[in-house]
Amino acid sequence: MSGNTFGKLFQITTFGESHGDGVGVVIDGCPAGLEITREEIQKELDRRRPGTSHLTTPRQEKDQVEILSGIFEGKTMGTPIALLIRNQDQIPAVYEPIKDLYRPGHADATYDAKYGMRDWRGGGRASARETIGRVAAGAIAKKLLAHSGVQITGYVTQIGTVKITRVDESTITTNLLNCPDATVLDAMIQEIETARKDLDSVGGIVEIIARGVPAGLGEPVFDKLSADLAHGIMSIPAVKGFEIGDGFASSSRHGSENNDEWTLKTLHGNNGNNTHIGTTTNHAGGIIGGISNGEDIILRFALKPTSSIAKKQQTVDRNGTSAEIEVHGRHDPCVAPRAVPIGEAMVALVLADHYLRNKISRIENI
Amino acid sequence: MSGNTFGKLFQITTFGESHGDGVGVVIDGCPAGLEITREEIQKELDRRRPGTSHLTTPRQEKDQVEILSGIFEGKTMGTPIALLIRNQDQIPAVYEPIKDLYRPGHADATYDAKYGMRDWRGGGRASARETIGRVAAGAIAKKLLAHSGVQITGYVTQIGTVKITRVDESTITTNLLNCPDATVLDAMIQEIETARKDLDSVGGIVEIIARGVPAGLGEPVFDKLSADLAHGIMSIPAVKGFEIGDGFASSSRHGSENNDEWTLKTLHGNNGNNTHIGTTTNHAGGIIGGISNGEDIILRFALKPTSSIAKKQQTVDRNGTSAEIEVHGRHDPCVAPRAVPIGEAMVALVLADHYLRNKISRIENI
Amino acid sequence: MSGNTFGKLFQITTFGESHGDGVGVVIDGCPAGLEITREEIQKELDRRRPGTSHLTTPRQEKDQVEILSGIFEGKTMGTPIALLIRNQDQIPAVYEPIKDLYRPGHADATYDAKYGMRDWRGGGRASARETIGRVAAGAIAKKLLAHSGVQITGYVTQIGTVKITRVDESTITTNLLNCPDATVLDAMIQEIETARKDLDSVGGIVEIIARGVPAGLGEPVFDKLSADLAHGIMSIPAVKGFEIGDGFASSSRHGSENNDEWTLKTLHGNNGNNTHIGTTTNHAGGIIGGISNGEDIILRFALKPTSSIAKKQQTVDRNGTSAEIEVHGRHDPCVAPRAVPIGEAMVALVLADHYLRNKISRIENI
Amino acid sequence: MSGNTFGKLFQITTFGESHGDGVGVVIDGCPAGLEITREEIQKELDRRRPGTSHLTTPRQEKDQVEILSGIFEGKTMGTPIALLIRNQDQIPAVYEPIKDLYRPGHADATYDAKYGMRDWRGGGRASARETIGRVAAGAIAKKLLAHSGVQITGYVTQIGTVKITRVDESTITTNLLNCPDATVLDAMIQEIETARKDLDSVGGIVEIIARGVPAGLGEPVFDKLSADLAHGIMSIPAVKGFEIGDGFASSSRHGSENNDEWTLKTLHGNNGNNTHIGTTTNHAGGIIGGISNGEDIILRFALKPTSSIAKKQQTVDRNGTSAEIEVHGRHDPCVAPRAVPIGEAMVALVLADHYLRNKISRIENI
Repeated sequence: MSGNTFGKLFQITTFGESHGDGVGVVIDGCPAGLEITREEIQKELDRRRPGTSHLTTPRQEKDQVEILSGIFEGKTMGTPIALLIRNQDQIPAVYEPIKDLYRPGHADATYDAKYGMRDWRGGGRASARETIGRVAAGAIAKKLLAHSGVQITGYVTQIGTVKITRVDESTITTNLLNCPDATVLDAMIQEIETARKDLDSVGGIVEIIARGVPAGLGEPVFDKLSADLAHGIMSIPAVKGFEIGDGFASSSRHGSENNDEWTLKTLHGNNGNNTHIGTTTNHAGGIIGGISNGEDIILRFALKPTSSIAKKQQTVDRNGTSAEIEVHGRHDPCVAPRAVPIGEAMVALVLADHYLRNKISRIENI
Repeated sequence: MSGNTFGKLFQITTFGESHGDGVGVVIDGCPAGLEITREEIQKELDRRRPGTSHLTTPRQEKDQVEILSGIFEGKTMGTPIALLIRNQDQIPAVYEPIKDLYRPGHADATYDAKYGMRDWRGGGRASARETIGRVAAGAIAKKLLAHSGVQITGYVTQIGTVKITRVDESTITTNLLNCPDATVLDAMIQEIETARKDLDSVGGIVEIIARGVPAGLGEPVFDKLSADLAHGIMSIPAVKGFEIGDGFASSSRHGSENNDEWTLKTLHGNNGNNTHIGTTTNHAGGIIGGISNGEDIILRFALKPTSSIAKKQQTVDRNGTSAEIEVHGRHDPCVAPRAVPIGEAMVALVLADHYLRNKISRIENI
Repeated sequence: MSGNTFGKLFQITTFGESHGDGVGVVIDGCPAGLEITREEIQKELDRRRPGTSHLTTPRQEKDQVEILSGIFEGKTMGTPIALLIRNQDQIPAVYEPIKDLYRPGHADATYDAKYGMRDWRGGGRASARETIGRVAAGAIAKKLLAHSGVQITGYVTQIGTVKITRVDESTITTNLLNCPDATVLDAMIQEIETARKDLDSVGGIVEIIARGVPAGLGEPVFDKLSADLAHGIMSIPAVKGFEIGDGFASSSRHGSENNDEWTLKTLHGNNGNNTHIGTTTNHAGGIIGGISNGEDIILRFALKPTSSIAKKQQTVDRNGTSAEIEVHGRHDPCVAPRAVPIGEAMVALVLADHYLRNKISRIENI
Repeated sequence: MSGNTFGKLFQITTFGESHGDGVGVVIDGCPAGLEITREEIQKELDRRRPGTSHLTTPRQEKDQVEILSGIFEGKTMGTPIALLIRNQDQIPAVYEPIKDLYRPGHADATYDAKYGMRDWRGGGRASARETIGRVAAGAIAKKLLAHSGVQITGYVTQIGTVKITRVDESTITTNLLNCPDATVLDAMIQEIETARKDLDSVGGIVEIIARGVPAGLGEPVFDKLSADLAHGIMSIPAVKGFEIGDGFASSSRHGSENNDEWTLKTLHGNNGNNTHIGTTTNHAGGIIGGISNGEDIILRFALKPTSSIAKKQQTVDRNGTSAEIEVHGRHDPCVAPRAVPIGEAMVALVLADHYLRNKISRIENI
């Protein structure tokens, strides 16, 4: 009810403030018998750590996940899986001078408006550290989905004004930006470096593809798969826009251009050929009427530039008194690269939830 | 759980197929004592009726709402409000020839994939008639919000490739398109007429503004106000994209351009001057960290072109056999104008829900 | 949130006041493909009608159910099933003289305390007519359960001070009281008749047995099968107590008497013998640790005497002024017999819900 | 959905197995600004610890609660409150010999039926250690309720066949049994000691009273206050029966005996006299039509004798092979005394939830 829980059957609840004792998540509704190791969860957490990638940093010391419950002898038990990641190296003192100032773009003023108080140390609950719990839970959701052949891949498509011109997925993990286009990588890095030198920040766009999603996932009215994906993605800090398939581009088209025609497709597998109904194009991004159609699910989301900038800005304090502010600290000048594993996690959580929901849609299956 | 319910405290459940006995909604969680008349609900329904507007059609004969429960002597009682709108003039026979064909862009194939069956008469549950219940419930949500000074306004900003150049709200209700810019109205009408003559359809974009929303609405993590708005809006049929405030445009900007600086604002009212903290710009669209900041909430959504077109398309039937299809019937060549009251309804439902949720956020208020 | 919805996967929402336009229910989450007819639903409604039983009244004219949605060509579609029962023969005028008086045992004062108002016509939402929706939904839940071999039977075990001495299930449907013991039937009838002549009423106890429930239903912590059954049963008007298995009697026993020892049981079926693990006794009533163990589920609930009595009682009006009241009308002097189909419906709803919930408890099943 | 969450607005999720790393709870929905200390939570935990009472054991070393999040500078922040209690002194080896045996009265067989596996170390998730999270959360619920003048008191009314003859609340905390009647205390102790010497166990009954509950709490249909209390109480391990007010006793009465007549009551307070509508008797236990009426809420629940007994019992192993079993370990021969703080916690959680739910029942209050 207070919005710290996500999902209906595969359900997660995150907790924790950035400068409290730790952050974590309770995953409830994961079926019993799923094999999962601490290392599989840790690997995803390492992907979202500041200033690192899973290629470049062989040994991680920080943000170590502890499994408190729900896993026994390497398998989920059907009971709640509680994961805890202790906070370390907090330096709350750096926030003390600005604890009464409202940082532009930050939730300081809105938390005060809602709760009459807030933990001013480093963003508190509004810190992006909250997403650690999402990524940890997403690792388990991904494992559940992999069990059914679903694979999720994300990458940046735009940093500031630099856009990718192609998608080569083998490139994504070779660079710190999760960029799939080696030809624009330098320009993207330049875009970020320039912002940093200007004591400024820059926005970006991320795209996620889910392959192998069976047809039939999604509920047809309010919990359309596209609507639940939008909910999950828009709940990531700094996200300001979402689109599925061709998204906004489809609004300037004609129906005859935009409709995906149905066709019979043949899969050549080990057990001979297998046919299924699919579409010849995929403007819809794999979802028709809120339900997956078996094609790739493709979505995109827009991230605003990081709110914390060292440049001088005008603001007020909590009493309304005018002030100037410069926000110093270890902030990424562009959050898009680190939003990739977070976006993947949210997509995995939505798909895992709907995967379970779909299991009870027909009397003949139960 | 099956996604026919929306909202957590102000909660609605819609029911009904387009060619069954009727469509309707049960609204649960509306506080007792709210004054509401059948006419106030009917007025909103009239705005979404095909081929009409509330200005041009003084007397409505169809889609009449019946109040089954929950309202007594002109006031809500705190008990469930059930509203029923009977279906009329259904001609299921026109759908019989294509009942086994999968219409491109329609949910026929995905319903079959999910349920193993579907009501093929006119789209069944996937019909836009389902939104009647949303609009009826939205009328009550609007009344609850008006009680607190919140006003919601929607209009089209784009039809096909024609975009508005200004917003004059007094213009919206003077035309059938809910267009706020008289200077582009003819071009928009032309865009639709051309599509219709080509047996085709065209997409569009709608913008909604909510004014007077108090600061503090929205839950800070998964149920960010922006995330719940995205959920509600993306659940409207044919919607493929959503953005809040500057949305996708903000991703190519620098933080120093995009941050909204805080300032002290003065309201000149009957009871003297009143100051509150606000922002000098509104790139964020009224929501920071998932919580409203007191500024106008502004959002936009993209509608794909109508899937039903009379132009010949390739498809398959439910057995996978190739076929050609022409979808005839009384379909709008552009759904954007009629999506305006539906979008307003979803925004009203989300805000009413969060308005109630925010009432219990602080111990000092309860 | 306002408590008009019950169940998590097989979910119902009831609506309606006793003297409004009608009462009804929306069932959401019933899997697609379940065969169900209007007559099967009507048959259960006829069992709860005042002054009748399904044996003695071959043709029912009142409380006719109308299927508004969700069923097509004799099968559920996976979409919400809305059922409406119009109110008839209301005589609100009889309630006008006592509309400001608080009837002892009735919810008049508590509705006023909660909502500041109430529909005073015949109990409004607090009327037992609300249970019509439960019984209608229960008919569908029973059909779903029958599909899996579950059968539910209820009967009275006590009326006032008269208790049954045996259970002969063939007797239940031969009398208006749903009494399974022909030897005490006359005494029970006498108990009721005496109360009626004294302008008074009398309480009773009902027992429900569910047979064929597979082992594994129920969630182990808060949603224990026993806890959800208690929730459902205690939500029936006039119910003041609940017990599962031996219930209160077990609290004065020793563990060695009360524990049910596990044993291997053999079923002799058409396909040869089949063994499964069960218990030699059933003090637990078929539920261990909140989860069904494959034995019969047995529960009992206590009903207070009908609050509406024609005998003179002291009370106050809504302003606190002392008054005398005699509540006239067509009230049953004992509600236990009619509580039997309502209790069965609630048990069916809980079991259907947990039947679906259990389908996704293990990775190997999904 | 998997039943590890309880409550709708004041909502808790417990996690943990008895021999895993720890047990805990996440409390979501507690309003911001409530003052609460670690010691207040610890004090309630100490009351449920084995073999202790809060009077006799001034210093507690075990089951120490750690606050992970949600509390800052001594106040709740409106964010999730995560509490962790590490497991200590586990001796899983003692369970190894019986890990494949099904203990009579225990959930071993039913967990296997549901999940196909279980943590056999000491009961795993089915252990009463799970209730630690409930008691910790209940401490916060009690604090919220105290803020509104609600006080909750529990005590045993029966151990085996020994029943109390009076209630002297000052006696409760003077003995290890939470017994309110000094005249039967020795007989109760004797009842337990006899069971222990016989390698057996014994059941009991607990009563809880909530005073100062305002009229208006409870939702009138499925979430009646009595139904939610039944749900909460029946979810406590070993509980087999529940009653509110006079409960089962009311079913043998006449309406004229059982109805509570309404009257005007006068409270003499510091600020002069204050009148309100109440009842002259309280057979209903403070709840009419599912809604509190301002009188004391009184409920009772039955606990079966402890399932773990050292006496020899017949059983089977998970393959169905017959076996004998003696369950040794540090089990209480009667769980009723320790069920008192757990029962109080569940009552506090239900009342806190409905306290918040009732805040939004009327338009004039919001």
